[in-house]
Amino acid sequence: MRVLILGADGYLGWPTSMYFSKKGHELLAVDNYFRRKAASDIDCTSLVLSPELGEKSRVWQELTGKEIKTAVGDVTDYAFLSKIFEEFSPEVVIHYAEQPSAVYSMMDRDKAALTLHNNLMTTLNVIYAVKEFAPDCHIVKLGTMGEYGTPDIDIEEGWLDIEHNGRSDRFLFPRQAGSLYHTTKIQDTDMLWLYVRMWGLRVTDLMQGPVYGISTDETDLDDRLLPNFHYDEVFGTVLNRFVVQSVAGYPLTVYGSGKQTRGYLNLRDTMQCVYLSAMNRASEGELRVYNQMTETFSVNELAARIKAVGDRLGYNVELNQIENPRVEKEDHYYNPKYTGLVELGLEPHLLTDEVLEGMFKMVDKYKDKINIDAIFRGVQWK
Amino acid sequence: MRVLILGADGYLGWPTSMYFSKKGHELLAVDNYFRRKAASDIDCTSLVLSPELGEKSRVWQELTGKEIKTAVGDVTDYAFLSKIFEEFSPEVVIHYAEQPSAVYSMMDRDKAALTLHNNLMTTLNVIYAVKEFAPDCHIVKLGTMGEYGTPDIDIEEGWLDIEHNGRSDRFLFPRQAGSLYHTTKIQDTDMLWLYVRMWGLRVTDLMQGPVYGISTDETDLDDRLLPNFHYDEVFGTVLNRFVVQSVAGYPLTVYGSGKQTRGYLNLRDTMQCVYLSAMNRASEGELRVYNQMTETFSVNELAARIKAVGDRLGYNVELNQIENPRVEKEDHYYNPKYTGLVELGLEPHLLTDEVLEGMFKMVDKYKDKINIDAIFRGVQWK
Repeated sequence: MRVLILGADGYLGWPTSMYFSKKGHELLAVDNYFRRKAASDIDCTSLVLSPELGEKSRVWQELTGKEIKTAVGDVTDYAFLSKIFEEFSPEVVIHYAEQPSAVYSMMDRDKAALTLHNNLMTTLNVIYAVKEFAPDCHIVKLGTMGEYGTPDIDIEEGWLDIEHNGRSDRFLFPRQAGSLYHTTKIQDTDMLWLYVRMWGLRVTDLMQGPVYGISTDETDLDDRLLPNFHYDEVFGTVLNRFVVQSVAGYPLTVYGSGKQTRGYLNLRDTMQCVYLSAMNRASEGELRVYNQMTETFSVNELAARIKAVGDRLGYNVELNQIENPRVEKEDHYYNPKYTGLVELGLEPHLLTDEVLEGMFKMVDKYKDKINIDAIFRGVQWK
Repeated sequence: MRVLILGADGYLGWPTSMYFSKKGHELLAVDNYFRRKAASDIDCTSLVLSPELGEKSRVWQELTGKEIKTAVGDVTDYAFLSKIFEEFSPEVVIHYAEQPSAVYSMMDRDKAALTLHNNLMTTLNVIYAVKEFAPDCHIVKLGTMGEYGTPDIDIEEGWLDIEHNGRSDRFLFPRQAGSLYHTTKIQDTDMLWLYVRMWGLRVTDLMQGPVYGISTDETDLDDRLLPNFHYDEVFGTVLNRFVVQSVAGYPLTVYGSGKQTRGYLNLRDTMQCVYLSAMNRASEGELRVYNQMTETFSVNELAARIKAVGDRLGYNVELNQIENPRVEKEDHYYNPKYTGLVELGLEPHLLTDEVLEGMFKMVDKYKDKINIDAIFRGVQWK
């Protein structure tokens, strides 16, 4: 299958490229290095400095004999994307080419505008390129569980049947997010749903929870194949960040009561979920939505798990409950359904102590690279 | 009250500016003339060529002694908008500065991208400018009834209480639109709702149906005060278009079965609705939503009403049922609630024969200006 990965230099993009390549697919990996530049601009580069796409691709070919084609360019540039689609004619496009940080999107007007412009224009361009050059191409789009926010009712997988005044209809599950970044993902979903109805596109929209982990079977081949791994307040997800803080001797920054609960998954499971979605195409005119997560934790539960493992490994982990810089519910109901991907064949890697020990071990190898100043700067939502 | 009107050169923007000015408010009217240029580029200029803002403002001042300040610039340019907010310090901002045509948004990729960029970036900029320079300023934002689409349940005013598995919560009423233009309005609503929760903004979001009419008490003073009035397939709303077609002897273009039903209102009632919204401010941290319409009609009902009046006036109106170029439900349930604005004091001008006769009379005055080629070109949604 011809697989186009947009945002292929990222934390998920590069491991996904290798995962599909290993299974024998023809890959084209595209990125504009936005996140590298953005992270460097605000002084919070990746723990592991992953080589650029061309170099990673050469290492991968040396080690496996398999080719990953690469191209550097901006998906918001329709002329660039058109050429990619015309020449490569993808059967599936995995769209990761979005500004991925909630914190970044709330820092100031310019970063908000960049997030809004980038995330919506990349999605619009993918939609038009599919229509114009590859109408049967399946779009697999990364959304977020954050689209739903924390409603006081059970969260279904994408859709909800609503009865009202004795009549009923089926709608996208109500969405209300807690940052501009998460809101752009709602906006993407609305746009995809429009063009699915108008043009009969095939779309899978993956509502993913925060991802943790640094390794996959493919990255285990060589450290030069590790993904960009962020541990700072802006680009690092909570679990990855807490492991780095533990190794650096920086007390874990628990925001507010720490009761905020979310659905998490291992990087290895993102690979499985995206692959299963690609192998089981959405139908013509179908917007298929999966909730992509494997278990729920509160921040306090995560902190306690990491402290237990960290202390056992001799790190003496401390917790520091600080005033919440975000605007969010700290004590809330949270009951999402997430059976669709399991039905497709997902075999979850749960958050065991062994998994956490593996993360500690890997981070410890790079502990000299940790920039303490990047861990917390208290970006305020207000 | 200091009232800032964004998109003040438009069909609604200019009459709104005069309406507030007449009542003694301090006005700043802003536009970038986007619609004039866009209409001219695709050869469908307004029936009445309204003078530019400065000239209209001078005519208004001559006739009434009242001043409407004007500024020409682009609301997507944050530096421009910041200066406006800093210097004028508005107490209310009426945000009409959006690309307003569903057809335009579906014509091609570039027009889709322009619509997406313009409509979301203007709204983001208004949000940031309010936060930065006038945090107590009330945002009155023009949305559309098209945000809801045509669901199979009653349409409430903005919000819906949902019960699910024995629990309940209140959400924005489910939205699913039939064009990219309408989808950008959903995206705006989601963005406003985010920042209302994050920053405690005061916002009124008006879900308006298609507007008809050309006159208000203020435009009656002098024809140079008439608004831009579009009658073409791209920028003209159905009722205005049908009146022009009748006068031009061009058979009324009924799309498909003609059973498509929407909520309509008179231009004079838009004035009232926006004014009532501005005079009754939303509370801090409130997103207040009104459905802005006064009665519902199917396309067939409109065509029959216009034919009856037109024939009586001697125009010999014909109907032409054509294949629907849009993707939309032609036979659907439609039961929207619209009591909020009446409770604030709206006194509807319904679509009487007298109102239609007035429109015929006005259009007839300008019948030499009608460009027959602009009426229908069959832009396909697919």
